[in-house]
Order: sequence, then structure tokens, then C-alpha cells
Amino acid sequence: MTDAACRNTDRSESGSDLQKLADSVKTFDGTSRKSPIASVSEIFKEVADAYGGCVADFGDDAAAIDIGNGDVILFAADGIWGRLIEKSPWWAGFTSVIVNINDIVAMGGRPLAMVDVVSSTDSETFKEIFKGMAEGVKKFGVPVVGGHTHPEGEKSLSVAVIGIAKKEHLIRSDSAKPGDLVIYAIDVDGRTGPNSPYSFESVFSKTPETIRKMYEAPQIIGQKKLATAGKDISNPGVIGTLGMLCETSGVGARIRLADIVIPNDPEITIEKWCLMHPGTGFVFTAAAGKAEECMSVLRAGGMTAAICGEITANKKVIIENGLNSAIVFDFEKDKITGIRK
Amino acid sequence: MTDAACRNTDRSESGSDLQKLADSVKTFDGTSRKSPIASVSEIFKEVADAYGGCVADFGDDAAAIDIGNGDVILFAADGIWGRLIEKSPWWAGFTSVIVNINDIVAMGGRPLAMVDVVSSTDSETFKEIFKGMAEGVKKFGVPVVGGHTHPEGEKSLSVAVIGIAKKEHLIRSDSAKPGDLVIYAIDVDGRTGPNSPYSFESVFSKTPETIRKMYEAPQIIGQKKLATAGKDISNPGVIGTLGMLCETSGVGARIRLADIVIPNDPEITIEKWCLMHPGTGFVFTAAAGKAEECMSVLRAGGMTAAICGEITANKKVIIENGLNSAIVFDFEKDKITGIRK
Repeated sequence: MTDAACRNTDRSESGSDLQKLADSVKTFDGTSRKSPIASVSEIFKEVADAYGGCVADFGDDAAAIDIGNGDVILFAADGIWGRLIEKSPWWAGFTSVIVNINDIVAMGGRPLAMVDVVSSTDSETFKEIFKGMAEGVKKFGVPVVGGHTHPEGEKSLSVAVIGIAKKEHLIRSDSAKPGDLVIYAIDVDGRTGPNSPYSFESVFSKTPETIRKMYEAPQIIGQKKLATAGKDISNPGVIGTLGMLCETSGVGARIRLADIVIPNDPEITIEKWCLMHPGTGFVFTAAAGKAEECMSVLRAGGMTAAICGEITANKKVIIENGLNSAIVFDFEKDKITGIRK
Repeated sequence: MTDAACRNTDRSESGSDLQKLADSVKTFDGTSRKSPIASVSEIFKEVADAYGGCVADFGDDAAAIDIGNGDVILFAADGIWGRLIEKSPWWAGFTSVIVNINDIVAMGGRPLAMVDVVSSTDSETFKEIFKGMAEGVKKFGVPVVGGHTHPEGEKSLSVAVIGIAKKEHLIRSDSAKPGDLVIYAIDVDGRTGPNSPYSFESVFSKTPETIRKMYEAPQIIGQKKLATAGKDISNPGVIGTLGMLCETSGVGARIRLADIVIPNDPEITIEKWCLMHPGTGFVFTAAAGKAEECMSVLRAGGMTAAICGEITANKKVIIENGLNSAIVFDFEKDKITGIRK
């Protein structure tokens, strides 16, 4: 994988097209689904303030719980959309592993184990979900160690994951600083997902060895302290996820559309890509002096990595294309999760 | 709380009544719902064998992951029945905290944090679930540190929990030995739950201090190595849960019905109690020389504790009443979870 996979063509948006793209990122349901997070966080804030030991919580990919010996336990949960389970229980199971492991890895952690809660009225769905999860377990080398099954109700799948990291090696979402460079690192060696035009899939046909090497790269970034912040790119897509990182960090960003890492597939336009879950992808921010080494580590892991812009103080996420620019988020008035520092 | 709360009256079952009770415990859905666990465990077994570091997994209340410094991280998940969310989202949230914390505490662990995955189409349900959880957080002193919300689909609630314990202090489910005494420890100072005749509730009106003291008792049991095995009593009830412990330990038990700890409420007959979730209750097995000290610790925590029988080698769980006896489970042919040592 090299930067050759970044296409710099077909991005001749006019100013109005660019604003349309900005608006689509802001309003599509991959991003708007994040809005309940702040109200949840508010309800728990009053009681949560009473407890110490939690280094990072709502707004980050995973919570980090200080266990007092220099280590933190990372802890996250993800649910899989019911519509994906209906379409393919196997892929729902497989995907549930990927998204949970991404949450731990994005923070520089080593995933340790997963548990699941699954509902379905038919045993075939259970079996397919678990077979998909088992395939994910094989690929990523992280075991499912327990869970809970409901032999009734609408099909649903929730997975929680734990991981471990040195506290000083954590990569947080809320620590990007004005002047940092924005780096996208994505495994573009894949295809549009089989069950949704809004997902990209790159791990299914890779060997466990290739995958583990790729997923170790963010851990090395953490250990070498090459990033100031980072986040795995999920349903809000490449720009929406950067938006979440900027929102919790209390900063903005200027992003050059032409430099966003994108798969080399003519079917995947930049407009479409901005609304897709890239499967395996991360956004990091890094001080100018560390960005090159940061990208080298990510490329050595097999991802395509490129600098596409920088963090700004003005709390606006702006996309640029040549001389045109458009505001995607203005956190003086907009919110994604609503979680602020 | 003293043993006076154990009623020794109204248990004059004839042989046929006793067999009826045995059959009801074996077949009611609190127990039969556990049957998918073995097939799940089977699917993951092939891949799980490839990974070390997991001390206890399927069949125990929580998985225990060895992090290599003498500590284990305990990790469990529980889902709340959809019908309970429909009846009262607040209680569903509150209960989700209790059942998760029970899973950690039953193993001698200290709960650290929870995460949740919640689905609902209406914001009122979200709010009530989270308010119930927040009340649980206050009572038990364990924070909710993250999660995932689905603004669509049937109402569902899954919670995962982590805890920590010294590896040598772990209380497992699969380590009961023939000759051990069976101890029930239950907080009988409560009432039938407001939303189900099959649940008992004892923590709602207690102070956080009282609750935390009670929930520290099993941790002390672990630290002092007073029990050979233990499990929190959940939907399968007092006998069904002991059955699960016997099944995974590869043993049987003889239980005197008259000595089972039961709330002092004339509405709660022994037949009914055997099908109820006792809210806060544990079954422990202990060597004869340690049973008294084990009960002292549990009583000092505020629970009612009594010896009600012993572990046997013959893999049958038998209830006795005077001269009558009835087989509830015969693990030579029956299974609850199907998980065996």
C-alpha cells in the first residue's frame, strides 16, 4: 500500500458542489445518530463526578480506567444496526468484532477480550452471528470470553471489548492542538461492503498475520508518542469523525479534499466516500515534527497514510478544494455529540 | 438480618408435591433460557483454544483475563428482557446495574465500570433507562463510562461490566468439590419486585453505604479463601443457580428445602421462591472447616446466610423435605448450560 492509492482527480467541485458535500456530511444519519451521546453523558455526569480513576470516558472511542500500576484498562461497547443483522447475520457478527477492536486500537491499546449480548427468536440467526464473530476472532486474535443470549425479541447484537495500554501511551480524542497536522490512515485495499453501499470492507480476505501487523501500528504510534490525538473512523465517515475529534478537543480543522485518502475504485466518488464507514481507518493529529514518522509507522503496518490538513483554533471544520472552501461544522453553534472539553 | 428470616414452616410437601417443585425448577424459562450457552461456547471453542490468558470464561459469572501482574480483569455482559423495558424502562436501567455488579462481586471481584448499548425509538425511554442506571450508579458506586445508543429498533438494553481481583482470590463456579457445604446468602430485607412476580428487590430503599458493605462481603470471602466456589443467584433461582454451579463443577448436591434462605413474606411460598430472582443473593460452597467463618462474613455484610446441604459426587441435584426427596437435575442426562469441565 502506498500513497498512490490516493486519487487526486475527479475532485473539481464548484463552490456550490462543495457546500452540498459539506451539508451532506453534516446531516447524514451516520453523523446525526451521534447526537444522543451528550444527553446520556449529562445524565451520568452528576453521579460520575463522584468517582475517580477514569481517565477518558464519553466522547472517546473507549473509556480508560486507571488501575493504578501505570496501566489503564480500555473499555468500549458497540451495537450493530438491526438492518445489518436482517441483511446478513454473519456480516453483523464479523463487523461487530472489527468495530470493537477499532475502538481499542485507535487509543493505542491492545485488545484483550470481547463479550456479547445477542437477541433473536431463531437459532439460525444466532448461529450465523456467532460464526461471523468467530471468523473475526480468528482474524484479529482477540477471544470472545462470554456473553448473554436472549431467545426472544427483535434481532439485536451488542458487543463490548476491553483492552490494555500504558497510561502514558494512550491516544485520546480530546487532545488535538491548533497547528497539529491531520493524518488519515486507511486500509484502502478492499471493496464496498457486501451489505451496505455505506461501508467499505478490507479485512475479509487478509490473513490474520497481515491484519495483526496493521492493527499493531496504532499501538506503536502510542508507544512512540507520535500523535497528539486520534480516533477510529466509524459511521460518520472521514470528515464526520474528524469533526467529532475537533468537537471534543475544542478546536477546528482545515482539510484539503484532494488529499483525503480514498480507495482506488471509480465507483467510490469523494462525495460517496465522505459518507462511508471505511472499515479500517484512523484519523490522527500530530505535531509537524512527528507527522512523517507517524505516517511511516502506519504505512509499515500496511495502511495508506497522508497529511490532508491542519488543526485550527477557530472551532470550524472547513473543507477546501482549490480556491473553494465550505464549512462542514461550526462548533460555536453546531454539535455532533455535544461533548466538549 | 439474622437467620430468623429463614422460615422453617409451610414446607410440608408430600413426595409428589416435591417432585412437582423439582420439575418446575427444571423446566421454567428462567432455567431453560440458559440452554443456548453451550452451543455458543462450542462455536467459539475452536478459536478460543488458540489464545491464552483467560482463566475462566463461559459458564462462569464473568470471564477472568490474566493481565500478568497477579491481577485478573473480570468481564461480563447482561441483557435485560425486552418485556421488563416495556413495563418500566427506569427499573430496567436500575436492574441492569444490579445484575452486572452481581456478576463481578460473585467472583470475589471489585467492580470498576460499566458500558451500555441501548435501543429505542423514543427519547423518553432512553431518559428513563439512563435515570434508572444513574440511580444504580449512585447506589453501587460504580460508574457508567461509555456506550452506544441506537435511535431505532425494538427497545433493548445491554450492559457490560469490568472488575478487578487478585488471581489467587477468584471465586469460580466450576470448582465445587464433593463434601463441600452449600451456603445460601441472600438479602431478604426486601419485597417482590414492582414489575415481575418472579423478582425480589432489596436495594432500592437502602443507602449506598449499606449496599457497598453488603457487596464487599463476597470480596472478603475471596481474599480469605473461605469458599471453594460461588455464583450469584440469577433468573434460574436458588436451586437452578446451584444446578448451574454443580453442572460446571461436575458434581451434584443434596439440598434441604427447609434450610433454603427465604424472605419472611407469607406471599412468597417456597414453590414461588424457587422460581424467583432474589435480587441480591449468592450461593457459595465451602469446606466444612470454613463454612462458619464464611457465613459470619456474609452476615456481617447484612445478608442472611445458612447451610442448606452439601455437594455430592454423583452429579444429581436432589431436594429433600423430611423423608421425601426428588431429583431436580441429573447431569448424566440433563443439561442447563451444557458447559462441563
